[in-house]
Amino acid sequence: MSSLHEECGVFGVFSRQRQEVGRLAYYGLYALQHRGQESCGVVVNDDGVFYSRRDLGLVSEVFSPDALDRLPPGRLALGHVRYGTTGGSSRANCQPIQVNHHKGKMALAHNGNLSNAFQLRLELERNGAIFHTTSDTETIAYIVTRERLTAPSIEAAVSRAMDTLEGAYSIVLMSSTKLIAARDPHGFRPLCYGKMEDGTYVVASESCALQSVGAVMERDIEPGEILVFSDKGLVSHREHCRTAVPTPCVFEHIYFARSDSVIDGVSVQAARMRAGEILARTYPVEADVVVGVPDSGLDAALGYSRASGIPYGLGFLKNKYIGRTFISPGQALRVNQVRIKLSPIRHTVEGRRVVLIDDSIVRGNTSARTVSLLREAGAREVHMRVSAPPFRYPCYYGTDVDSQDHLIACRHTVEEIAEMIGVDTLGYLPLEALGEMCGCGSCCAACFDGKYPTPVPEDTRKDRFEAPLSQRPPKNIE
Amino acid sequence: MSSLHEECGVFGVFSRQRQEVGRLAYYGLYALQHRGQESCGVVVNDDGVFYSRRDLGLVSEVFSPDALDRLPPGRLALGHVRYGTTGGSSRANCQPIQVNHHKGKMALAHNGNLSNAFQLRLELERNGAIFHTTSDTETIAYIVTRERLTAPSIEAAVSRAMDTLEGAYSIVLMSSTKLIAARDPHGFRPLCYGKMEDGTYVVASESCALQSVGAVMERDIEPGEILVFSDKGLVSHREHCRTAVPTPCVFEHIYFARSDSVIDGVSVQAARMRAGEILARTYPVEADVVVGVPDSGLDAALGYSRASGIPYGLGFLKNKYIGRTFISPGQALRVNQVRIKLSPIRHTVEGRRVVLIDDSIVRGNTSARTVSLLREAGAREVHMRVSAPPFRYPCYYGTDVDSQDHLIACRHTVEEIAEMIGVDTLGYLPLEALGEMCGCGSCCAACFDGKYPTPVPEDTRKDRFEAPLSQRPPKNIE
Amino acid sequence: MSSLHEECGVFGVFSRQRQEVGRLAYYGLYALQHRGQESCGVVVNDDGVFYSRRDLGLVSEVFSPDALDRLPPGRLALGHVRYGTTGGSSRANCQPIQVNHHKGKMALAHNGNLSNAFQLRLELERNGAIFHTTSDTETIAYIVTRERLTAPSIEAAVSRAMDTLEGAYSIVLMSSTKLIAARDPHGFRPLCYGKMEDGTYVVASESCALQSVGAVMERDIEPGEILVFSDKGLVSHREHCRTAVPTPCVFEHIYFARSDSVIDGVSVQAARMRAGEILARTYPVEADVVVGVPDSGLDAALGYSRASGIPYGLGFLKNKYIGRTFISPGQALRVNQVRIKLSPIRHTVEGRRVVLIDDSIVRGNTSARTVSLLREAGAREVHMRVSAPPFRYPCYYGTDVDSQDHLIACRHTVEEIAEMIGVDTLGYLPLEALGEMCGCGSCCAACFDGKYPTPVPEDTRKDRFEAPLSQRPPKNIE
Amino acid sequence: MSSLHEECGVFGVFSRQRQEVGRLAYYGLYALQHRGQESCGVVVNDDGVFYSRRDLGLVSEVFSPDALDRLPPGRLALGHVRYGTTGGSSRANCQPIQVNHHKGKMALAHNGNLSNAFQLRLELERNGAIFHTTSDTETIAYIVTRERLTAPSIEAAVSRAMDTLEGAYSIVLMSSTKLIAARDPHGFRPLCYGKMEDGTYVVASESCALQSVGAVMERDIEPGEILVFSDKGLVSHREHCRTAVPTPCVFEHIYFARSDSVIDGVSVQAARMRAGEILARTYPVEADVVVGVPDSGLDAALGYSRASGIPYGLGFLKNKYIGRTFISPGQALRVNQVRIKLSPIRHTVEGRRVVLIDDSIVRGNTSARTVSLLREAGAREVHMRVSAPPFRYPCYYGTDVDSQDHLIACRHTVEEIAEMIGVDTLGYLPLEALGEMCGCGSCCAACFDGKYPTPVPEDTRKDRFEAPLSQRPPKNIE
Repeated sequence: MSSLHEECGVFGVFSRQRQEVGRLAYYGLYALQHRGQESCGVVVNDDGVFYSRRDLGLVSEVFSPDALDRLPPGRLALGHVRYGTTGGSSRANCQPIQVNHHKGKMALAHNGNLSNAFQLRLELERNGAIFHTTSDTETIAYIVTRERLTAPSIEAAVSRAMDTLEGAYSIVLMSSTKLIAARDPHGFRPLCYGKMEDGTYVVASESCALQSVGAVMERDIEPGEILVFSDKGLVSHREHCRTAVPTPCVFEHIYFARSDSVIDGVSVQAARMRAGEILARTYPVEADVVVGVPDSGLDAALGYSRASGIPYGLGFLKNKYIGRTFISPGQALRVNQVRIKLSPIRHTVEGRRVVLIDDSIVRGNTSARTVSLLREAGAREVHMRVSAPPFRYPCYYGTDVDSQDHLIACRHTVEEIAEMIGVDTLGYLPLEALGEMCGCGSCCAACFDGKYPTPVPEDTRKDRFEAPLSQRPPKNIE
Repeated sequence: MSSLHEECGVFGVFSRQRQEVGRLAYYGLYALQHRGQESCGVVVNDDGVFYSRRDLGLVSEVFSPDALDRLPPGRLALGHVRYGTTGGSSRANCQPIQVNHHKGKMALAHNGNLSNAFQLRLELERNGAIFHTTSDTETIAYIVTRERLTAPSIEAAVSRAMDTLEGAYSIVLMSSTKLIAARDPHGFRPLCYGKMEDGTYVVASESCALQSVGAVMERDIEPGEILVFSDKGLVSHREHCRTAVPTPCVFEHIYFARSDSVIDGVSVQAARMRAGEILARTYPVEADVVVGVPDSGLDAALGYSRASGIPYGLGFLKNKYIGRTFISPGQALRVNQVRIKLSPIRHTVEGRRVVLIDDSIVRGNTSARTVSLLREAGAREVHMRVSAPPFRYPCYYGTDVDSQDHLIACRHTVEEIAEMIGVDTLGYLPLEALGEMCGCGSCCAACFDGKYPTPVPEDTRKDRFEAPLSQRPPKNIE
Repeated sequence: MSSLHEECGVFGVFSRQRQEVGRLAYYGLYALQHRGQESCGVVVNDDGVFYSRRDLGLVSEVFSPDALDRLPPGRLALGHVRYGTTGGSSRANCQPIQVNHHKGKMALAHNGNLSNAFQLRLELERNGAIFHTTSDTETIAYIVTRERLTAPSIEAAVSRAMDTLEGAYSIVLMSSTKLIAARDPHGFRPLCYGKMEDGTYVVASESCALQSVGAVMERDIEPGEILVFSDKGLVSHREHCRTAVPTPCVFEHIYFARSDSVIDGVSVQAARMRAGEILARTYPVEADVVVGVPDSGLDAALGYSRASGIPYGLGFLKNKYIGRTFISPGQALRVNQVRIKLSPIRHTVEGRRVVLIDDSIVRGNTSARTVSLLREAGAREVHMRVSAPPFRYPCYYGTDVDSQDHLIACRHTVEEIAEMIGVDTLGYLPLEALGEMCGCGSCCAACFDGKYPTPVPEDTRKDRFEAPLSQRPPKNIE
Repeated sequence: MSSLHEECGVFGVFSRQRQEVGRLAYYGLYALQHRGQESCGVVVNDDGVFYSRRDLGLVSEVFSPDALDRLPPGRLALGHVRYGTTGGSSRANCQPIQVNHHKGKMALAHNGNLSNAFQLRLELERNGAIFHTTSDTETIAYIVTRERLTAPSIEAAVSRAMDTLEGAYSIVLMSSTKLIAARDPHGFRPLCYGKMEDGTYVVASESCALQSVGAVMERDIEPGEILVFSDKGLVSHREHCRTAVPTPCVFEHIYFARSDSVIDGVSVQAARMRAGEILARTYPVEADVVVGVPDSGLDAALGYSRASGIPYGLGFLKNKYIGRTFISPGQALRVNQVRIKLSPIRHTVEGRRVVLIDDSIVRGNTSARTVSLLREAGAREVHMRVSAPPFRYPCYYGTDVDSQDHLIACRHTVEEIAEMIGVDTLGYLPLEALGEMCGCGSCCAACFDGKYPTPVPEDTRKDRFEAPLSQRPPKNIE
């Protein structure tokens, strides 16, 4: 499943002693790379002086040994990975952003999407603001620093800013002396923190990043909470908590998050296995083997197998060398691109009735090719089970769902889809099972059911910040 | 398991019409990348003119869109991926090699190691030969072209050359009009061929590469066979067949090969699952879950689970972004490198008695860290099962086993190893079960049992070709 | 002479029809590269949509064929080359800068230094502005766009902004439909424009860039003038003209500018030859040959030769392959770095009394080594003549003169300097001859005489924008 | 003049103590870069172990600080710069080449072209030799190492090899303990050596490279001489001296060599100035200023000026930033490429009668554009004088003269050429003046007069080594 994208992952470090906090961020970003592969960046704060490295590319590409060595030790650091659509891909949009303002310096990393970004930006521009990027992050930076002109502290400025921000935002912010983590009152995007043996605090989008640097998770940042790490210790500001019903994004559990993460108290792997169990209960079938599409379908496949008693099998080999630089075969060569990336294992599927588990069907083409590979490898029957409901609605909180025109579930019934992708039977996770799956009463499932927890933005065109000058997006070619 | 390395993978194309054979080789090499990550290369033969691209790096690094576009269409192509030890890493050693000789041009790609390379080279040098590389491939090229001075055809020259070559060699060779595949009489290294829909023949080290380009496997090249692809069709020369007892390398099935490959008629996945079954029979244990170390331990884990009835679990998440450019944490940061690469999933292992399946224990350090991660994540007991016997002997046929000084099994008993890596119980695949595992009566298991199918080279120092001038290896820094 | 640096060069294009204006800017920047080698950038305006490419590096490094191809055709373009001190070298500071504001989009390229930048920035920050860079250019952008909130047009906003800007600024600015060139009332830095055969207007820091793209120079932009290029034609706004006595920088003629440029009506080559003539008159000497240090000493050497009657000689060969990536010999190797860059030609100097012409002596070390090379090559006497007065004062208008601590002329008499660099006699251009040299009554020669045409900034530390948070500069490592 | 190319430059170091000889070679190659810009390489010999770095690109591109640091100290080193035509440009052809042979190791760098290369290669191939490259250097390496099988020493092998080599070869060769320099009996290409203060010997194609590393030139290697540097001191072998009349290439003095070099006892600058004097005598003209086309026309222009009494002027500014990566303007933009590279200085030429000195007219196009730039800049008359006779014949000794089909002088009279390039008068250096110019009675001027000092090769096609397999050249795309 390659057409859905989370926008970002954030990481923050607050250490009691000067040490290689930039390297800690580097390792943390490796664990968050799945949340954004377009660009990444690290800012180190060494006694009030900020040193940064930001660029387009994977963590492994942006941070050469040399680049890493040039980050000095320090006590605070911020890291960010970002996914960006082709159009908005630009060095200027790389995070964390870093600004100088009247009261000092600030660096900011953000995951999510504001739903009132357009109005906020318009107001700021009317007051003389100029924007270097097209990202919401710069808008948040403006509002926080503007509040800071009169607020008694940076955390107070963040709190005042949260009065005007709407939508999804998990932010980590660094002043010259403080690290601040804040999560919007709905808690759309995850954010948690942990502690290392030497007392260093780390904040991250997902707990897997805490674990990767050897920190023990303390807890999630609560929806609406502002958590301040400083030399005075840890202070939690909760004035925005419970100002809204928490509606964490259900798609984190289904697809975005790593299965070794625990989000809002729920193991992602457990949720995915439950999805498989629910599917087994809802759409039982006589079959010989259950196989998952790697990597995100494997947990649900195991859940299905356990609940149904049908043996689990390793039905595919995924080529781990196919990366961003893979060159697709053109029309001239009759080579199937899916075949190069995903190879069916004949030993597991030949002559068998196969239950195939994937986490979504977006446009349908990839699923159709995967099914046909199984049949070529000798599968007698293919029964597809999808560990999520059908996508039908756009997301305004940070998920880059394909346009509705392309979403197969917007235009076709389940029966039609089954025929189009060539499976014998097809079953999607029922909408009403989402709560059971992710163990949460009130999560946001707007992309499935169209029920948005906040007012929907009026102008949702990607290029809305280009108005009034142009209908087309600017382009930073770098 | 990262300390064992296959030397190479080869790929060849013979097409009836001029087409993008270089691109076919590119896709084929992607499927063989696991056999060699140091360097790669493709040579295209367009009506007798050879065009090549060879360099240090992964297929994805060496072949930019630009580099791929500069390879012209043609009817024949050769591809190669290579693993090389640090010392011998050099652009000069990249394959396929390409030479001009009295009767024309030849390109050659080779997988394996000659056991009489030193003697052959000495003889050649005594007759005035000069060598640009330190690889066996150049020696083979010399012998073939020298025979070609008097042999009536290139295939006859290959056959005569095979009279003097000893050890492991699976070669694919290209003259201006012919593609030739040859495998040594012992058949140490795999080699097979297939056919595409349009009649194009492809030769590859493993069947997974045939499948990736959509070819249907015809069969393995037999030990000792010379197979000639030309405009006259396919001709098999079998004068070297059955001149030795076939002894294919058992380690291909245990570790090297991709689990979707079929080698000498045996599915690699099936062999690995059988190893797990044998381990379950041989070392039964009461436990709650069986987990494999990804990726190569997964099949055996599933076999163990099925044979023992203990549930299969997904106990680890492997970070797929950790590549060759990952920068290891130094001593200053107390960050565990294994933790970044391999994350235990608490949901699967917490409070459980875990059977842990891996395909080898080389030095022991990595296993020890992996076990300790499991314990940190709450595993109550850890019972390790290894899907191969202990390594004890050097390989002279193309596997780069660690020096005996470092091999933990050369210096310690199974009990000692169990204690050193911190497991409750430990069991290795019994030597006598290897035949059952790979379904072959006579495979080479010399690295386990020290029984070498050919005379062992007298001088096996890596820098033996440096003599008599120096004790130290030359160094091409590029 | 390598320790003095101009900060920037600017280039603008306004074409009547859509064409490859980005390429025009690329060629223009090649001709301005001597004014800044740290970074460069081009912004193309295609019907209101801005496309940009900016990065650290030379024009030849930043603009690969690919990068150039990705710039679309358009009708307006802006280009910039920049010199930056090591500390402030950063991608964020690359120009032209590009901002979105309430009334639309703007791109801006700037050459010079504001003398009241600190006060302006403070005021802006007090009103909530945030700064992404440490450059004056962002300050100018803020002031212009803030005025634009109420001004009837972009040119009116520029004019109002000029009421508050002090110091040196030659700017070229692009809105969605207009190209605007403006020069500060003192005219510190040059700016001129020309016309191509097809009616396209080009603006540039120096006339050599007009000539390089085949445009015919129309005239200099006058000090204080705002020149607007739009579909309505050319409009000149002169309300800031003659509000100050023009004081163009004399160092443009001595060192910065290319000798084929004509600045404020005076040929740079003619000025340099006049400097040589004045030196010949002022410090006559009996000698056999006059040689100039390439490239900037050659014109003055020819002037000296003509005025004195002593033959002109080609005394040095300058290695044209020594670039930014040249690796200096360390202490271990006793190789003289000057020798590699500059080779004396024995045939010209051996046994001769040599008059050596250079355009400056900064620290003295390079001059000393050059003189010693001449003596090694057999020069009997060396009489040095410098085509500028001694440097003694800092520049606040865009020239990066070395710190006064290092300037040899701040601490030593002419006699002492002569002895330190090992010449028989030494003569500097007399201060009072500067007017004759550059044919201008009122040029700024503050770096020689300390007479500053504007109030001097109170805080001139390079890191003044870092206050109050830190004493040390931020560092963007990219 | 950009269409004529020398093939190579060589550099060797022999030091009494272990030091950074690789860095010495690096600096030496910088001084020889004008002799070859396609590829370069350095091999360091550290106590018999060879370390090398070779690649396509300029010295500044191939040797990063990192790459230079990886070359260890040693006592011997070899360096090479190479020019190659587009077709033969390949990493495989980079020098120095490095081979292992029966008696040890050898590295070899070569400048020149064998005239009997084809026959030699054929013979070698008939005896079983295989060739990795298409260069003469590999042929020389084969012959030397083959002789070494029976010769008592490497220098004896070189001497025996010289019995069979014909044509132009200046070679520097390194065994594990010796550095050997040899020059063919005709002495076509230059070769000299010098000594550093610490007793280190350096060998180089041109004396400018000795000077650049601070060595004092001892003398030229004589035509036919073999000079051996070893721990036993310096030994000269002269058995091939005076076996032919020395015929050094006159084009070294006219164009190839750097003007600060002294070749076979004659200063290159002096020779070029004499060419200008001869032109002044032979084709006097009434004019106001003499200007040379930089860089190679400047010396002759000064000679013309001195002999004629017409003032010397600096008529052009050459853009020093135009390098190999410059992107030529296409047809769409009406921008003149010569204009970007070479800018006429109006101040010098406007309203004047100009004598224009260049060192050659190859196809005529560049000259025509240069002349037209002068006229645009206001030159009243343009009288062109060329400091060489017209090119009419191919060179078989290492100069890549354009094909005769393109040489303007092969198809047109002087009068026609004058009209084609738009000059008022035109004069070439008379053939009979070449001896006076370079101060040598017997130099090779075959490219001007067709008189070849050796038998001419029968097959002179560039792709002759491709036969018999193909008519087209192989292509290494790297």
